[in-house]
Amino acid sequence: MSANLRPSGQQPKNLATYDSAFLKACRREPVPHTPVWFMRQAGRSLPEYLKLREGVPMLESCARPEMVTEITLQPVRRHRVDAAIYYSDIVVPLKAIGIDLDIKPGVGPVIADPVRTRADLTRLRDLTPDDVPYVTEAVGMLTAELGETPLIGFAGAPFTLASYLIEGGPSRTYERTKAMMYGDPELWTDLVDRLAEITGAFLKVQIEAGASAVQLFDSWAGSLAPDDYRRYVQPASAKVFDAVAGYGVPRIHFGVGTGELLGLMSEAGADVVGVDWRVPLDEAARRVGSGKTFQGNLDPTVLFAPTEVVETKAREVLDAAAGLEGHIFNLGHGVMPSTDPDALTRLVDYVHTQSAR
Amino acid sequence: MSANLRPSGQQPKNLATYDSAFLKACRREPVPHTPVWFMRQAGRSLPEYLKLREGVPMLESCARPEMVTEITLQPVRRHRVDAAIYYSDIVVPLKAIGIDLDIKPGVGPVIADPVRTRADLTRLRDLTPDDVPYVTEAVGMLTAELGETPLIGFAGAPFTLASYLIEGGPSRTYERTKAMMYGDPELWTDLVDRLAEITGAFLKVQIEAGASAVQLFDSWAGSLAPDDYRRYVQPASAKVFDAVAGYGVPRIHFGVGTGELLGLMSEAGADVVGVDWRVPLDEAARRVGSGKTFQGNLDPTVLFAPTEVVETKAREVLDAAAGLEGHIFNLGHGVMPSTDPDALTRLVDYVHTQSAR
Repeated sequence: MSANLRPSGQQPKNLATYDSAFLKACRREPVPHTPVWFMRQAGRSLPEYLKLREGVPMLESCARPEMVTEITLQPVRRHRVDAAIYYSDIVVPLKAIGIDLDIKPGVGPVIADPVRTRADLTRLRDLTPDDVPYVTEAVGMLTAELGETPLIGFAGAPFTLASYLIEGGPSRTYERTKAMMYGDPELWTDLVDRLAEITGAFLKVQIEAGASAVQLFDSWAGSLAPDDYRRYVQPASAKVFDAVAGYGVPRIHFGVGTGELLGLMSEAGADVVGVDWRVPLDEAARRVGSGKTFQGNLDPTVLFAPTEVVETKAREVLDAAAGLEGHIFNLGHGVMPSTDPDALTRLVDYVHTQSAR
Repeated sequence: MSANLRPSGQQPKNLATYDSAFLKACRREPVPHTPVWFMRQAGRSLPEYLKLREGVPMLESCARPEMVTEITLQPVRRHRVDAAIYYSDIVVPLKAIGIDLDIKPGVGPVIADPVRTRADLTRLRDLTPDDVPYVTEAVGMLTAELGETPLIGFAGAPFTLASYLIEGGPSRTYERTKAMMYGDPELWTDLVDRLAEITGAFLKVQIEAGASAVQLFDSWAGSLAPDDYRRYVQPASAKVFDAVAGYGVPRIHFGVGTGELLGLMSEAGADVVGVDWRVPLDEAARRVGSGKTFQGNLDPTVLFAPTEVVETKAREVLDAAAGLEGHIFNLGHGVMPSTDPDALTRLVDYVHTQSAR
C-alpha cells in the first residue's frame, strides 16, 4: 500500500455539518428525526435535471463543476433530504486516469479495450488530485452552498469496477470477471488491489475538498457467493476503507442483493451498512452485529404505489429500524427514472414527521 | 379453487423411475450417489441442440413432440445426468390458451398486448389437455425412451408469469408488476390466482403423461421483499402445488436470488427447495427447517474455471450438503450458453464418483 493512502490524524474538513441528523445517525447518536436521502436522488427522476443535461453526454456532465454542483443540489432543494450525494458515475476515476470508455445511453459504461491480461494492468496508473480538478472544485462549491447539510462522496468499489473493465460493459452474469477470479487469482488480486488504490485516492480527493461522508458502491457484489466475496473481494474493499479511515468521516458501503454478504461488507470497514429491500433491517442487524448504523431500505418500486401504500411501507421500515443503534432512511436501491418526484418529497416529509423526537 | 385442481389418491404414473437416485433423494432416502441434473441442461450449451434448432423459432420447437423429445434427451445421453427436464419455456401454457406472445432471440418473451386491467383477465381462460396435445405426446415418448431415468415436468410460477404479462416482456425492475400488486391488490390476486389454475393444469398434463417430478420456476421472485412475497405471491404458488399434491410426485421450487424467501417458498408446498449459489446449502437448511430435500447450488460461472477449481467448488457444495436429509446436485441457476459441455460431463462424473456410497 502506498504511503499516501494512509493518512492519519486528519479531521473532517467540513465541521459545519458535524451536528446534522445525518452525521449523528452515522455516529449512532440521538437524532432529532431519522435522516433521509435517496440513492440516485440527483438524476433522471427530476425534470430540472433532464433539462440541464439536454445535449450534454453523461461523462461530460460529470466533468463540469458548475453542472455537478447544480445537479447535486437539485434534490436537496426539492425534497429537503438530509444529505447530498456527489453527482458522478462509478467510472469517472477510470476515465480520469486515461481509460478509454464512454457511457452509452440505455446501455451503461462501455470500455473500448477491456482489461484481461497482466499487460493491461499497466493502463491502471495512480490517480492524483490533478486528474480530477473538477471534483475538488465542485465539492468546494457544494460545501459552500450546502452549509450544514452534509455532502456524501461517491465511488464504485473494486469488484464492480473490475467487472466493467473485464466484461467491457454491463453484464448480468459476470462470466469473464469470475473466470479471471477463479482461473487467474493472482492477476485478479493485482487488478482489484490497483483499483483499490485508485478508488481510495478518488475518495480522498472528495474528503479533502470537504465531503462529510463517503459511500462505496459495490453495486454487483451481490452476484458473489459469500466464500468468493471473502476471498476475492473483501480485502480490496477493506483497502479502500482503510485509505480513508484516518479522516474520521463515516464510510457507507452498499450493494444490491447482498443479504448474504452484509456481515462481510461491514467487516471490510463500513461504519454504515446499506441494505437493499430484500432483507428487513432488524434481520440485517442480526447478521451484522452491533456498533453499526444501517441505511435503507424501501423497495424503490413502492413509489409507484398510492401514497397510503408508500406510507404503510415506509412505516414498516421505520418499525423494523426501531431497535437499531443508528438508522438512515433510504431506498433499497436507486430512485427509478420514472418515479414521480412529488412522491419522493412526500416520503421525506412522512419520514421526518413520523420519526420526530 | 376448481374441483379439477384437487386430484386425490392418484399415484405417480411412471413406476419405472421409483428407485432412481433422483427420486430417492427427493424422498430423503439413502442414495447410491448424489443425483445430478442441471437447470437448462437441454439448450444452447450443446452443439447438437443448436444444430437441431437451426431455423426453428423457440416456441415452434416447444410444440413439436419429436423435437422436444430429442432436445430433452440430448443432455441425458451426453452427460449421464440423473434426471431429464422437460424442454419447454415458461410462457408455453400462456401461448397455449391463446395469449399473443413470442420469444424474441436475445430479448425473451414479448407479449403483444400486456395484461393490465380487469378486462384483460378474461383472456386468461382455463387450460385443458387438448390445448397442449404435443406435451402429452412428448412426455409419453420421453418416458418410454428414458426408462428408469425420471423426467421432471416444468412450469413457471404465477408471479413470474404475471411479471411477463404485465410488463409485456422481460424487466429488471418489475415496476408495473409491483405497481399493480401494491396499487390494485384485488386485481393482482385475481390475476395470480388465474395463473395458478392454468399452471396447475399444465403440470397435471405432464404428470398424467408420465413425468416423475415437477419443478415450479419462480425465476424472478427474488425481486420481492419477504413480506410482499408472503402476502402477494405465496398463496398462488401454494395453489399450484396443491393442485398436484395428490399425485405423490416430488415438487421442486426454485427462484434465483431467493435467499430471504427459502422458508416461505418451502412452505408454499415444495418437497425439494432449489437454492442459488448465494446461500450455502447448510445455511439454506437452517432457514428452511427439516423434512425437505435441497437442490443446488454451484455458481454456473464456476464452469468457466479450470477443472481443478470446478472440482474444489463442487466438493465444497457436497461438503455443505453433508448434513442434509436429501441433496440433489445442480447449479445455482441455469447453464450459461457459452459453457463448455465437456466441463458439465466432467462435473457429473466428479459428483457421482465423490458421492458414491
